[in-house]
Amino acid sequence: MVTIRDVAKLAGVSPSTASRVMNDSAMISEATKQRVRQAMKELDYSPNYSARNLVKRHANTIGIVLPVRENQDFLGNNPFFMQLIQGIASVCTEHQFMVSLATGRTEEEMMTNLQNLIRSGHIAKFIFLYSKKNDPVFQFMLEQDVACVVVGQSYGQPTSQVAFVDNDNYRAGQDVATFLLDKGYTQICYAYTDMNELVQADRYAGYEEVMRDHQRPSYAMMLSRVDSEKNEQTLRSFLQKNRQIQAFITCDDAMAIRLQKLFKALKISSRRYAIISFNNSVLAEMAMPSLSSVEIFPMELGQTAARLVLNQTGQEEIAHITHEIIERDSTPNLQQPS
Amino acid sequence: MVTIRDVAKLAGVSPSTASRVMNDSAMISEATKQRVRQAMKELDYSPNYSARNLVKRHANTIGIVLPVRENQDFLGNNPFFMQLIQGIASVCTEHQFMVSLATGRTEEEMMTNLQNLIRSGHIAKFIFLYSKKNDPVFQFMLEQDVACVVVGQSYGQPTSQVAFVDNDNYRAGQDVATFLLDKGYTQICYAYTDMNELVQADRYAGYEEVMRDHQRPSYAMMLSRVDSEKNEQTLRSFLQKNRQIQAFITCDDAMAIRLQKLFKALKISSRRYAIISFNNSVLAEMAMPSLSSVEIFPMELGQTAARLVLNQTGQEEIAHITHEIIERDSTPNLQQPS
Repeated sequence: MVTIRDVAKLAGVSPSTASRVMNDSAMISEATKQRVRQAMKELDYSPNYSARNLVKRHANTIGIVLPVRENQDFLGNNPFFMQLIQGIASVCTEHQFMVSLATGRTEEEMMTNLQNLIRSGHIAKFIFLYSKKNDPVFQFMLEQDVACVVVGQSYGQPTSQVAFVDNDNYRAGQDVATFLLDKGYTQICYAYTDMNELVQADRYAGYEEVMRDHQRPSYAMMLSRVDSEKNEQTLRSFLQKNRQIQAFITCDDAMAIRLQKLFKALKISSRRYAIISFNNSVLAEMAMPSLSSVEIFPMELGQTAARLVLNQTGQEEIAHITHEIIERDSTPNLQQPS
Repeated sequence: MVTIRDVAKLAGVSPSTASRVMNDSAMISEATKQRVRQAMKELDYSPNYSARNLVKRHANTIGIVLPVRENQDFLGNNPFFMQLIQGIASVCTEHQFMVSLATGRTEEEMMTNLQNLIRSGHIAKFIFLYSKKNDPVFQFMLEQDVACVVVGQSYGQPTSQVAFVDNDNYRAGQDVATFLLDKGYTQICYAYTDMNELVQADRYAGYEEVMRDHQRPSYAMMLSRVDSEKNEQTLRSFLQKNRQIQAFITCDDAMAIRLQKLFKALKISSRRYAIISFNNSVLAEMAMPSLSSVEIFPMELGQTAARLVLNQTGQEEIAHITHEIIERDSTPNLQQPS
């Protein structure tokens, strides 16, 4: 039976240092950690997690908190979450941490489940895959002795207990507006579903600022995620009032495809308006014409969230992940009328 | 501190029975389990998982084995997996089991991670989210003292150690063929990417049998998932040789949308051919025209897999989950030429 002493000897460190590496202590340098992990690997050393947990009450598992599932389809239809989870899992695996999922059908069920996970002693670090104002689940977690990383818009300041990881949605909104302006479009409308969603509001604010800077008007049109008949009326009357419109920025790929379908229903050519959207999901490539869209790198969001929660050393942090416009057929250069 | 004795007293059972319920023993009736769980709830009793694991080496966690991630995008772009995981998590939560994820970039990494999970003592029950012939990861697990449920096509017979959960893909293939025949279509082609994928082969076999029963010909056309130029040639020459074709069955929604795009590229009206596909993913609704597609109920697949692995009592089992054709615009009744 290989012991921690054997690992320490091979790595040329003291047993207590080796043990600290296993606990991913912030006091140990990355170089030493690498050396100890290499030794663990060579000796095929696998710590007895149960024994360690009982003795040290030390957590070797990251808990992933999914949004409460009110709508059965929401998570499944959103590839974003699976990519986030993959990113988290890849970093945890590297650091010999396990990944557990916390789910619940209601907020009460979720809180009970989280309490059980915390009491079990394995988990003291959690990653929230969503950000919601006045979330009772998150409030509950703040009262526990755990560290949290939230993927999404920060509410309030980060603390030693809570960090945030997100895309810079304001900046992304600026970037798509600039992208369309550079292509010759000046009359651009932002199509959204709910400005209470901070992501949508931030992207709008970025777009709006760029339009103002270029002394161009801003337009906003609210569409429904479900009621396509109402959307048809909304779009028809919007276009009648604003015949000068040349392009649309939509809050996500699904909304862009809804817009394409509305054009079809109103017998408007699919090439009449440029469209750019966000998320660069599988839908963007499938659309006709294929959609220019903003890649938001969910794998990296997950990886960064995991690194933050594993190394959380009391530093307050809001991490921003980059984004990138992927250009496809829906945003050709504007043909000037001759 | 509430003990297992308090729980047993309130439930009116012996402490050893209460303990067996906590271990989800097959020897205890569902009614007794319910009573004990109710008592645990009323007393807010949370077992000390670590202590139990150390003493009893009893596992209270289900491990979910994801496909090895060769292609970073594969999982993320496949909503199926997230829905499976949700189904598994909901049942595990009900039974006070935790859910851990096993991931790896290579088969070797995956096996190391699985070994660590097993050695840790928490996990002796696993659910594979994929089924692949001659999979070294699965072979490795067969040599361990663990119970597995595989979501997907069964290879070989189930044993006391391995059960399978799947849709009845052969039946689903029969059903879509019958559906199109009932609508008046008689010249129907199956468009696939890889008959080595058992799902695709089974669906084809079901379709082929129904066509034979109705004394109608079968057609199969292989398309690529990536090379759309080659696909254009394949489709053009297939349609030249088979002018009588009226409808397509595609192996999944993404392939159906590819086919729609190919029609567009070849200047064929999107209404010229009926199309029906499988999976009823978010893509089906987004397509133009929207796609009739077979719902395969991934949430239920996950729930059934979890129930099977939790109650696995040495019974050999292959469970089949139902499916359902969701009718949309891509399969109108065939207009007979007048």
